[in-house]
Amino acid sequence: MLSDLPTPFASLRAAYARGRSPVDVIADAFDRLDQVGDPGIFLHADRDGALAAARALDPAQDLPLWGIPFAVKDNIDVAGLPTTAACPDFSYVAEADAAAVARLRAAGAICLGKTNLDQFATGLVGTRSPYPVPKNALDPAIVPGGSSSGSAVAVAHGIAAFALGTDTAGSGRVPAALNGIVGLKPTLGAVSARGMVPACRTLDTISVFAATVADAEAAFAVMRGFDATDAYSKPLPPEPAIGTVPAGLRIGVPDADTLETCGDTVQAGAFHATLELLRQQGATIVPKDFSPFYATAQMLYEGAWVAERCAAVGERLTRSPETLHPVTRAILEPGLALTAVDAFRGQYRLAELRRVCEQALAAVDLLCVPTIPCFVTLAEDRDDPIGYNARLGTYTNFVNLLDMAGIAVPTGRRADARPASCTFLAGQGRDGLVAAVAKRVEDRACLPAPRTLSDSAARPVSGARA
Amino acid sequence: MLSDLPTPFASLRAAYARGRSPVDVIADAFDRLDQVGDPGIFLHADRDGALAAARALDPAQDLPLWGIPFAVKDNIDVAGLPTTAACPDFSYVAEADAAAVARLRAAGAICLGKTNLDQFATGLVGTRSPYPVPKNALDPAIVPGGSSSGSAVAVAHGIAAFALGTDTAGSGRVPAALNGIVGLKPTLGAVSARGMVPACRTLDTISVFAATVADAEAAFAVMRGFDATDAYSKPLPPEPAIGTVPAGLRIGVPDADTLETCGDTVQAGAFHATLELLRQQGATIVPKDFSPFYATAQMLYEGAWVAERCAAVGERLTRSPETLHPVTRAILEPGLALTAVDAFRGQYRLAELRRVCEQALAAVDLLCVPTIPCFVTLAEDRDDPIGYNARLGTYTNFVNLLDMAGIAVPTGRRADARPASCTFLAGQGRDGLVAAVAKRVEDRACLPAPRTLSDSAARPVSGARA
Repeated sequence: MLSDLPTPFASLRAAYARGRSPVDVIADAFDRLDQVGDPGIFLHADRDGALAAARALDPAQDLPLWGIPFAVKDNIDVAGLPTTAACPDFSYVAEADAAAVARLRAAGAICLGKTNLDQFATGLVGTRSPYPVPKNALDPAIVPGGSSSGSAVAVAHGIAAFALGTDTAGSGRVPAALNGIVGLKPTLGAVSARGMVPACRTLDTISVFAATVADAEAAFAVMRGFDATDAYSKPLPPEPAIGTVPAGLRIGVPDADTLETCGDTVQAGAFHATLELLRQQGATIVPKDFSPFYATAQMLYEGAWVAERCAAVGERLTRSPETLHPVTRAILEPGLALTAVDAFRGQYRLAELRRVCEQALAAVDLLCVPTIPCFVTLAEDRDDPIGYNARLGTYTNFVNLLDMAGIAVPTGRRADARPASCTFLAGQGRDGLVAAVAKRVEDRACLPAPRTLSDSAARPVSGARA
Repeated sequence: MLSDLPTPFASLRAAYARGRSPVDVIADAFDRLDQVGDPGIFLHADRDGALAAARALDPAQDLPLWGIPFAVKDNIDVAGLPTTAACPDFSYVAEADAAAVARLRAAGAICLGKTNLDQFATGLVGTRSPYPVPKNALDPAIVPGGSSSGSAVAVAHGIAAFALGTDTAGSGRVPAALNGIVGLKPTLGAVSARGMVPACRTLDTISVFAATVADAEAAFAVMRGFDATDAYSKPLPPEPAIGTVPAGLRIGVPDADTLETCGDTVQAGAFHATLELLRQQGATIVPKDFSPFYATAQMLYEGAWVAERCAAVGERLTRSPETLHPVTRAILEPGLALTAVDAFRGQYRLAELRRVCEQALAAVDLLCVPTIPCFVTLAEDRDDPIGYNARLGTYTNFVNLLDMAGIAVPTGRRADARPASCTFLAGQGRDGLVAAVAKRVEDRACLPAPRTLSDSAARPVSGARA
């Protein structure tokens, strides 16, 4: 059981207590990156900056993330480093840390560098980058997942103890499922988006990848907080990072007619095993018609929100479209033809679907869904780079449009050894509830021990998670 | 003092208590309409329907609006009557009452018919109708105000004890100021918009005209309530219709540099007299830079929200534009050229302005503004039908974009006998607070006695309010 093992954060803290130095830990992190040997993970690995930060840490300071190394998706600013959003022509050197990064560094966390992504955070496969595509940490035949590809892979390899992603439509959850780690998607506005390159400003949030729920929540607790300079930041009531699970928990799940696994019976079996575990833990499973959630999801790439992505990419789309990844360009260009009338009509349709979804949610405390319906191989993605990508968003695309808090959590290995993952979702501000339920599942799931940076010498790099 | 006189609702109730019948009251209402002799007020006066409703009232029933006659703006459905939105080609016979109308009728109120408006509720002057324009109830040289022109004039003449308007940008407040009555603009979503022809769905609310704050609130109390079938209805906490005024009240007002009265020093003087009254009542007046509120207001007709009006008017704009009033058409057509990217960028700008305005509001309990900056004559409106109209929205256009609760209240007569009016505004859900403060001002303002339907025989029609 994972609960018997220290989390990467706890392992690092124990190592520091034993006298290990942050400089050694950072050196180990980059050694591990070298050992993994995947040039696609980091777009800018900042060894010198990280070592300098490690040296500058005051051993006397009691900081919540003292000496914890993290990676940052390259659509989030880190002062002095380039921000590319995986578009070389877009690159600029950030003058200041993004608000979330500043909070993490002030709490003692050490930034290792900037990670690869689907260009402009548009994608769930992780292959839409002009840079080398990161390899999936568990199975090189399947896509790494995106758009936060490098961040997820860096955490899965234990290079970073946690990493920042962003999540507009699932980019903070799908790569977690594909690499067997935790992906925390906060309530919109809970974490300041200042210093993040927007994808869809009304739907964007910075997210967290970590090996465990506890570690993800520890980082989120530092990052969260109202920021008056971000127009989409929300003042949310303070709550414990991991709440308590109420008695008589009711969990909505897709009913038999609307559970979608693209014909992958192993995936369906893994999900049903999770539901059985939840029942054993006392929850009531409530099958729901998921049609309104899927109808909501469809609006994201088939409706007005494509134009919101165009607004973010700006004049590049018309003035220098050749600087865009061809798949990204193909997805965005139709958004230029949409009118303002289309945009408002899309919003009315969303408001109506929200109402229907709210009613479906009224009788349950939260939802549980498979994080992804099935796996996608690199070969499939090459054959149909839009269709397979869309599949991966089945259970994630609707979440931001409905402003739900979510957390993707590993639930063990499937019969074929691929990682199983489910996502818990609840209404805005209920981040603590989904974390509590996810942690209870994690505690009972059969999970491999996460890679930590305090065990570099003791364990081989490959095979540790198999 | 108005507080010494019965309100129209109270007068009617007293008359009913003395044995007067609803049929007599309805007959009086239509007699008064005949006496006023303005064919522009009602687009459909429903004498037979109203008399039938009066006959059907059960004297034994204790209903909050038993026998109270009201008028309905003709962009709100009343079952069996045509809804035109002042566009004859748009006309349809409503199958059901709008949700708000149904609540009022269930509470015993009697509908007199449907009133004129600026076509598709687009305008603040009241002259943008293909039907005869209603005459201002106080001064035939000035515009009646719009878009809820007929409803405001009907209440000012005492034909209806209250009337429904709609308010997207001031249509429920500007005509109140121009006709010397109360205009109540609820928090968005407090009253169901089901059965209302949309203008801008994200900004629309049904509103109430009445002679006094108490009467307006009595009608609002019946109308308000969550409606799951209206995607923009909001579940708001229950509160007293008229709240209490907290001690140490702080009221934000435009500072000397940003108070706009278009050079009308009499209007500025009337507003300052109101502020002096508020000070005497113990409030602290806090001058504020109103620039961010004016910048917000500008977005309504110079930004993406014009396209929202196009969405409401639909294909008529392109397929049969000749069926539109020429001014309405001229205002809407530019909205067709806006892109979805423009719409999203407009929303970002609004989100940023909202944040700035929220900060301005943080240090005060509510705002007080002149309801209109100045008066507009029919001649001026003919000369420049867009420019003078825009002036009238100075203090109203920003309100719906910021989702504030508001109430326009008469504050007496100006030095030149024109009606003075101020509007109190507070954040969403604070309807009870603005009503409380407005009522306290109304109680001390030197106001003429409102026309009531229990005094028809005793008073002449004209001059009673002069």
